[in-house]
Amino acid sequence: MQPTRLHVQVNPASALAEAFTEARIRGGLPGQVTMRFGQTPEALEEGLATAEALLLVGAAPLQDLPRRAPHLRWISYTSAGVEWLLRAGLPASVTLTNASGTHIPKAAEFALLSVLMLNNRMPHFATAQRAHRWAPQPAGTVAGKTALILGMGALGGAAARALAGQGMRLIGNSHSGRPHPDVAVMTRGEGFRAHLPETDFLLITLPLTPATDGLVGATVLDALPRHAGVVNLGRGEILDADALAERLRDGRLAGAVLDALPQEPLPPESPLWDTPNLVITPHCGLYDPDAYAPRCLDAFFANLARFQAGEPLHQVVDPARGY
Amino acid sequence: MQPTRLHVQVNPASALAEAFTEARIRGGLPGQVTMRFGQTPEALEEGLATAEALLLVGAAPLQDLPRRAPHLRWISYTSAGVEWLLRAGLPASVTLTNASGTHIPKAAEFALLSVLMLNNRMPHFATAQRAHRWAPQPAGTVAGKTALILGMGALGGAAARALAGQGMRLIGNSHSGRPHPDVAVMTRGEGFRAHLPETDFLLITLPLTPATDGLVGATVLDALPRHAGVVNLGRGEILDADALAERLRDGRLAGAVLDALPQEPLPPESPLWDTPNLVITPHCGLYDPDAYAPRCLDAFFANLARFQAGEPLHQVVDPARGY
Repeated sequence: MQPTRLHVQVNPASALAEAFTEARIRGGLPGQVTMRFGQTPEALEEGLATAEALLLVGAAPLQDLPRRAPHLRWISYTSAGVEWLLRAGLPASVTLTNASGTHIPKAAEFALLSVLMLNNRMPHFATAQRAHRWAPQPAGTVAGKTALILGMGALGGAAARALAGQGMRLIGNSHSGRPHPDVAVMTRGEGFRAHLPETDFLLITLPLTPATDGLVGATVLDALPRHAGVVNLGRGEILDADALAERLRDGRLAGAVLDALPQEPLPPESPLWDTPNLVITPHCGLYDPDAYAPRCLDAFFANLARFQAGEPLHQVVDPARGY
Repeated sequence: MQPTRLHVQVNPASALAEAFTEARIRGGLPGQVTMRFGQTPEALEEGLATAEALLLVGAAPLQDLPRRAPHLRWISYTSAGVEWLLRAGLPASVTLTNASGTHIPKAAEFALLSVLMLNNRMPHFATAQRAHRWAPQPAGTVAGKTALILGMGALGGAAARALAGQGMRLIGNSHSGRPHPDVAVMTRGEGFRAHLPETDFLLITLPLTPATDGLVGATVLDALPRHAGVVNLGRGEILDADALAERLRDGRLAGAVLDALPQEPLPPESPLWDTPNLVITPHCGLYDPDAYAPRCLDAFFANLARFQAGEPLHQVVDPARGY
């Protein structure tokens, strides 16, 4: 059997770069693999010329793959959001896998934290603290309150489990509408809209696709009650942050926690920073620096063995759905 | 049997005043009770002259009770912290009960929230947001990390249960050192000091007594690791907030959430408001406005029936211990 030709491309600007070292990856490879490791555009070009499999850490220019990578059959991407990769246009002969599910324990904790912050008026207290204002606003517990989760993939499912653990009532929404054990009411497609008036907390845990781009805009936000809070753990483009900010300023919504922003890094001049009752976290809420790389590499090595054996890969992205 | 003479005194400035209405209290009384209801100093004076039992909502001047309240045998206070009442000097013939335990579900949620905020760098993100700064600081989950809980009464026990639910390792400290099912290591008296270097999160859930006044000062704080966070859910006087602020400013501690402050309301000119990595909440974190009054009144009515039957009361405060 010929050794499998693997190229590993690490973008040094990626937050993951430090964790995905050449030694660490080489140390876990199964037999019958020849691996190249690159961090420059030149190394990518050389690697693509012969590689059958590409392990990708951070973004890289991947246009025109049929010409540049004639032998390529698999790209393994070490994050969950693949919208930029699909925009590059992958050949049908290349299977794309991602890291969906790798961040589950941390994602569950951060989703729980975000909802508890909203329920306990933390965005309000942060705003009051900036103004040196002592402004009590007592709140009941989250038990019995309702969270609507848009996107019931690995992330949304983990959020549902964590919130159910606090006695919350959950409404889910997904493309398939497939039931989830922790979700009382599952909706599909546009079905979630009817439940917005009974929603205390709206969680966005969707991938960015043509269908989700701009999904949560003024119409959705205006259907929420005034005491509701919004959490975005997906992609900034899914939520109209300006429409949200307007409603936070005039009290039509109570609070928000955004870990995904319309521009990242958010520039210093953005008015979002000073929006009342808005908590901004710099898109690292779901990332566990100790656990992520080992979990991700374990999944990659297992997929690599399947690739060599000609078996179906796990974590395969459907380009038509976009996730 | 003579009817029991009850006086109810509500301080209109108390956050609880709205929930403890005359109608609500009268509606739940057992038989054989004559009740007076007052909100003014004059009404207090008249009530004390004949009352055997006093239900107290918020603070009131209670010096010189033997002269003013010759028949009084029981004071039921609708909060947990009774330090100001004990300072007034109660006659030995008067039993004091408090509302210890009434706030458990909300207290558990707020303790969990505070630790999750510290673990997920929320104080850092809030500080960065004020400066319009995008400053990622990824963190692992709380599972396996260590919280040291000072004070294992109703509040500390509820915190322990909530944190154990997230897979945390717990160290407890109390006067008695009595074991708690969710706590791996129980210490008593000064025994907690040996565990400060292994503490990721220090929770203060103590009552204010002569023994706890100023307990958490520079010496305790300096024994914590630099990545540690501090939560105060007890009383402001227990923690040296200036020493804490100094250590937050120069990075010797990572963050803090204070729901109890050295002065309340904290005045606008306090430097604490702008201390980096310090989250201030205006002492309402443990208060559930919907659940507190009903739970508190249920406990009071049950105690009142015991009082009439000559049975031992529940939630009795030991003046020597101070809680």
